[in-house]
Amino acid sequence: MDQPLQCPGFQAAGLAAGIKKNGNPDLGLIYSPAPAALAGMFTRNRVAAAPVQLCRSRLAQGVARAIIVNAGNANCCTGEKGLSDATTICADVSTHLGLAENEVLPASTGVIGEPLPLDRIRAAIPGLVAALSDEGFENAARAMMTTDTVPKQVLRQFEIDGRIVTILAVAKGAGMIRPDMATMLCFICTDAALAADTLQGVLARTVDRTLNRITIDGDTSTNDTVLALANGVSGVKVQSAAQVQAFAQAMNDILLEVARRLVADGEGVTRVVDIIVKGAPSDADAQRIAEAVAHSPLVKTAIFGQDANWGRIMMAVGRAGVAIDPEAVDIYFNEVIMARSGQGCGKAAEAQVTAVMRLPAYTVTIDLNAGSGRWTMITCDFSIDYVKINADYRS
Amino acid sequence: MDQPLQCPGFQAAGLAAGIKKNGNPDLGLIYSPAPAALAGMFTRNRVAAAPVQLCRSRLAQGVARAIIVNAGNANCCTGEKGLSDATTICADVSTHLGLAENEVLPASTGVIGEPLPLDRIRAAIPGLVAALSDEGFENAARAMMTTDTVPKQVLRQFEIDGRIVTILAVAKGAGMIRPDMATMLCFICTDAALAADTLQGVLARTVDRTLNRITIDGDTSTNDTVLALANGVSGVKVQSAAQVQAFAQAMNDILLEVARRLVADGEGVTRVVDIIVKGAPSDADAQRIAEAVAHSPLVKTAIFGQDANWGRIMMAVGRAGVAIDPEAVDIYFNEVIMARSGQGCGKAAEAQVTAVMRLPAYTVTIDLNAGSGRWTMITCDFSIDYVKINADYRS
Repeated sequence: MDQPLQCPGFQAAGLAAGIKKNGNPDLGLIYSPAPAALAGMFTRNRVAAAPVQLCRSRLAQGVARAIIVNAGNANCCTGEKGLSDATTICADVSTHLGLAENEVLPASTGVIGEPLPLDRIRAAIPGLVAALSDEGFENAARAMMTTDTVPKQVLRQFEIDGRIVTILAVAKGAGMIRPDMATMLCFICTDAALAADTLQGVLARTVDRTLNRITIDGDTSTNDTVLALANGVSGVKVQSAAQVQAFAQAMNDILLEVARRLVADGEGVTRVVDIIVKGAPSDADAQRIAEAVAHSPLVKTAIFGQDANWGRIMMAVGRAGVAIDPEAVDIYFNEVIMARSGQGCGKAAEAQVTAVMRLPAYTVTIDLNAGSGRWTMITCDFSIDYVKINADYRS
Repeated sequence: MDQPLQCPGFQAAGLAAGIKKNGNPDLGLIYSPAPAALAGMFTRNRVAAAPVQLCRSRLAQGVARAIIVNAGNANCCTGEKGLSDATTICADVSTHLGLAENEVLPASTGVIGEPLPLDRIRAAIPGLVAALSDEGFENAARAMMTTDTVPKQVLRQFEIDGRIVTILAVAKGAGMIRPDMATMLCFICTDAALAADTLQGVLARTVDRTLNRITIDGDTSTNDTVLALANGVSGVKVQSAAQVQAFAQAMNDILLEVARRLVADGEGVTRVVDIIVKGAPSDADAQRIAEAVAHSPLVKTAIFGQDANWGRIMMAVGRAGVAIDPEAVDIYFNEVIMARSGQGCGKAAEAQVTAVMRLPAYTVTIDLNAGSGRWTMITCDFSIDYVKINADYRS
């Protein structure tokens, strides 16, 4: 991407404040001079970091103008000091931007259980505010990274009633991602004009279909946060059912692309695989099976090893707690059928499947032939590097 | 172990029948000339291998005299031929031993989805029967191994009413083990005399407290089978409540030892860790939390990396779906407190915990300070070798 991604009426910045040991960028800021409608979704983990607690309490106001984000420290399991630190940081940002204190929302990611280096962060805020620019989103995206290898920004421009609307999402992912929560950090800026409750409805619906369908290691972060800001500077109002539908479709496309990039850049990932379960008694049954397959370490190590070990998929299907008939199950890798009626299709099929498994991305379709329920999960392999990264994370 | 382990009135054997590609022993037999009371527990996976289906149908008869077991092929997802193959193998064994066909029970472990090399197995059965001896249990245990690195046999001799009773268990484990089922393969021989329903009751109770509390990768095999045979040749009857209690206590001790050995020999395992959750609102809540911690890939990679990253334990506690107060949680590694009231105890504690984490086995105690519920799980680390073993399993 040579052209920096921008969203009208939004500015961003990122720099190194000395939170990360390696000196990489670790403090980011997103700012809308105009007040923006606010929506958010947060981790379902009972252990929620201080910034998540503060965001939750400020969500009801339905409006915000800035997001301050740090990597390198989660500000979680840090008690009252953690909450006070997050509040202080927001207050500093609001002072420098001339905002009300509660118009700033905090987010953190990194190691759990260590106090924030508050003085270093406070010292960096004036420079961060001074660095704000229309073209600063890549710097903000870089400042959010932990074990991510690339910054993640996705932009869509589309028409509503003949007028251009922009949505720009920046995100970070990598480890600790599972579907029963939002995702890691994802901030969505749009110049469309929406009421906060409309924006919240769209966010909830689209996150459920996109970011909630990915899994890297089945774990659930204490800090996961999705925030959306709609500042309306395009003058395009999203109110009617058709307008909301068009906006939601674009949001869905963006978040699906974010989801794929998060999985592709998951810790140690070499393969991205869509697990499609169909022919299930219900969508809920399909979801249980898709999640069991997508989370199975034995399936994920076979994907890493490019081993057409479809028996492990049968194992995972069988342990999902759904009453299935094993002898009705068909399994495909892309278009190649590997198992029919619960039995393998032989060496020729296996050779073709092995070729599919060399691709960087492919689909595994599991047809239960027992109804019309379906569900898709996006998963990845479990590699030697995943273990290396997570064994040495704090070293 | 210099002295071969034996159980009065039982014989065993094991040899290489050519099922495994590497030529290692892969066919084992356990035999009681006297009819033995039978009990069994099987996988809860909906995809159950052919031998499991056959065992289930023969369990109701309450009596058996032989177990034929092969490694290298699971005889699962093999359709009607798989069931017919298992039946044929049992029939051959019964012919050579002069038994009724249904007195023989089959078990298999290995790759899913490939047909058994039936001819090779049938050709090996006469030699296997001829090799039966009182001292053959180690050979049988070796013939059950897949990725196990050592054969597993546990013997206890104890007194009931002043007379000696023997229990001998042989088992194989390694991968695909999770607690919501029995375990991999475990065969228990005893010379005590029990009614089949008494034996089944003891087995169900003790498996639930031992083999069902271990986890290696959270996956669930299609073949897991625990069988117990009680041939009564000691003449010691286990009937009264006190006798059953004494027998069950010994069985519990044996199966707990089997469980620890299975975890210690899990794929790529370098550490065995007891996860003890106490102070929970209920035992069921404690169980949910213990399982979430024991299964977490991020906790397990931190154990491998000897990284005192207690924040990941908090994360796993928080995602278990139990309403906990994070600020009431204390975490200990052996006797060392690492987190008090949900916050870290600092660098000195961390240095002590890092020393604990170098031990081959230790406990992690999570005190919720919210009641008297408790649960223990036995888990292990997630290592680079786990991934290597499972990526290359069929190669």
